[in-house]
Amino acid sequence: MSGPAFNKITVVGVGLLGGSVGLAVKAADERTRVVGVGRRESSLGRALASGAVDETTLETAAGVAGADLVVLATPLGAYEDHLLAMKDALPRRAVVTDVGSTKGLVVRVAESVLGRGGPFVGSHPMAGGENRGVEFARADLFLNAPCIVTPTPHTPPGHVRKVERFWKMLGGVAIRLSPSAHDRAVAKVSHLPHVLAALIVALQGRSGQGLIGSGFLDTTRVASGNAAMWREILMTNRKAVLAAVDAADEQLMRLRDLLEVGDGPGIERFLAQAKRRRDEWAASRLRRAE
Amino acid sequence: MSGPAFNKITVVGVGLLGGSVGLAVKAADERTRVVGVGRRESSLGRALASGAVDETTLETAAGVAGADLVVLATPLGAYEDHLLAMKDALPRRAVVTDVGSTKGLVVRVAESVLGRGGPFVGSHPMAGGENRGVEFARADLFLNAPCIVTPTPHTPPGHVRKVERFWKMLGGVAIRLSPSAHDRAVAKVSHLPHVLAALIVALQGRSGQGLIGSGFLDTTRVASGNAAMWREILMTNRKAVLAAVDAADEQLMRLRDLLEVGDGPGIERFLAQAKRRRDEWAASRLRRAE
Repeated sequence: MSGPAFNKITVVGVGLLGGSVGLAVKAADERTRVVGVGRRESSLGRALASGAVDETTLETAAGVAGADLVVLATPLGAYEDHLLAMKDALPRRAVVTDVGSTKGLVVRVAESVLGRGGPFVGSHPMAGGENRGVEFARADLFLNAPCIVTPTPHTPPGHVRKVERFWKMLGGVAIRLSPSAHDRAVAKVSHLPHVLAALIVALQGRSGQGLIGSGFLDTTRVASGNAAMWREILMTNRKAVLAAVDAADEQLMRLRDLLEVGDGPGIERFLAQAKRRRDEWAASRLRRAE
Repeated sequence: MSGPAFNKITVVGVGLLGGSVGLAVKAADERTRVVGVGRRESSLGRALASGAVDETTLETAAGVAGADLVVLATPLGAYEDHLLAMKDALPRRAVVTDVGSTKGLVVRVAESVLGRGGPFVGSHPMAGGENRGVEFARADLFLNAPCIVTPTPHTPPGHVRKVERFWKMLGGVAIRLSPSAHDRAVAKVSHLPHVLAALIVALQGRSGQGLIGSGFLDTTRVASGNAAMWREILMTNRKAVLAAVDAADEQLMRLRDLLEVGDGPGIERFLAQAKRRRDEWAASRLRRAE
């Protein structure tokens, strides 16, 4: 029997995503040792108790010693400190990745600390939900989830393949995009929908509240996400989100015109095309999950 | 033992909503006779086979003979013809209601055909989904659903109470609003979210399609609704939808400004308020369902 694909993986930050990485790694190959780095003994203790990590430490440098792979899973604002702390303790063979929702700024920061052509390869597994904390971590969180890997022209191809293998091992679907292509795509597929969901909630008046049904709750589900986390996402992807907002506003005004002049066939064409596309995507996601 | 609350209910249109009305009526009191009126023998046959109706007819006038309550459940565009056809055949005691998603125009048409202070009381049960046809009908479709009843100043109070009793019998939560208050509220809670969901789908480019996850699919679920039905909803509620679109655009531009100047705290306040409100509404809906 061959050895494990990874001997030791260090997860920095043991919340929902970090904890799920740990559980998924252990489920894939229990021989892989998982080290959890955190700021508080209490959350590290819960991560240990849940089986997401085998050992814990408050020291980033100590945590990454001997690791094949380091996964940053803290808020984006804490990345730079952790990268600086781990820089001299990283083994030569180690690759560093992350789970952050925006990539342009993250990759720039990581390459400036660890070096261009260095060990960092950005990742963004599109999985999660409204809940936070290791209590909600699940071994199958990444199952069939798009896991975007964002190399730059300087990233060693072997590092990219290693990170892609990692996400596949966790059940994800690895997708390669440049950091900026990633940011533009998620601005449209995730960040703008979040903004619009919050906006729909903000628009409701008193009389509407008794009328809230499952359609409204589904449409606005993402607006129940953590506000501080989403502030960070929107602020670190401002340029792409602004472009998506402008594109949305243009479409909204086009639809407004159709309504104003009472162009029923035009409205139906717009709705029918959206229905066709969404039905197709929902079906293709179901097929991926099979 | 007392007699049934309704001896005979006629459902005009036996699709998802009409069929569910039939199933829910029979589940609440199987002594109530349910008559289904439809345009096609095939769908009437399926309604009969599913147990949603006890008898069927292609003739509206014949179908309403002897009915305590008539429920219009066809597309809005067919209302006027059915109202004209049933006008002289309605028993004196009969009340007529409907399940249409907009109310101002519907109530005006119904009162012009059946008379002000006549038998018509508008209803809008907020239940349904993307699927159409009696195959998807369910006896519990209206369970805990807001069922809005929209009397005018001319509507006999006894008629309003009868329609409210009807929706409560089917498990719904009866809510009384004027037709125009209804239309303004649903424009915000349902029609604008539908427009924005379709718009989010329309904005996606090629590279985003592999990134579609459960958040995106939830946010855009309503966009899979039938386009012809939604065209009718938006066109019959144009004024209120235009006002909601304008309110949304104003909010979107306010958010755009926050992003443009990089006002992190302002963005977080906006998101946090939306999260707080949505969490509260989701919890209160759960409590209602208990």
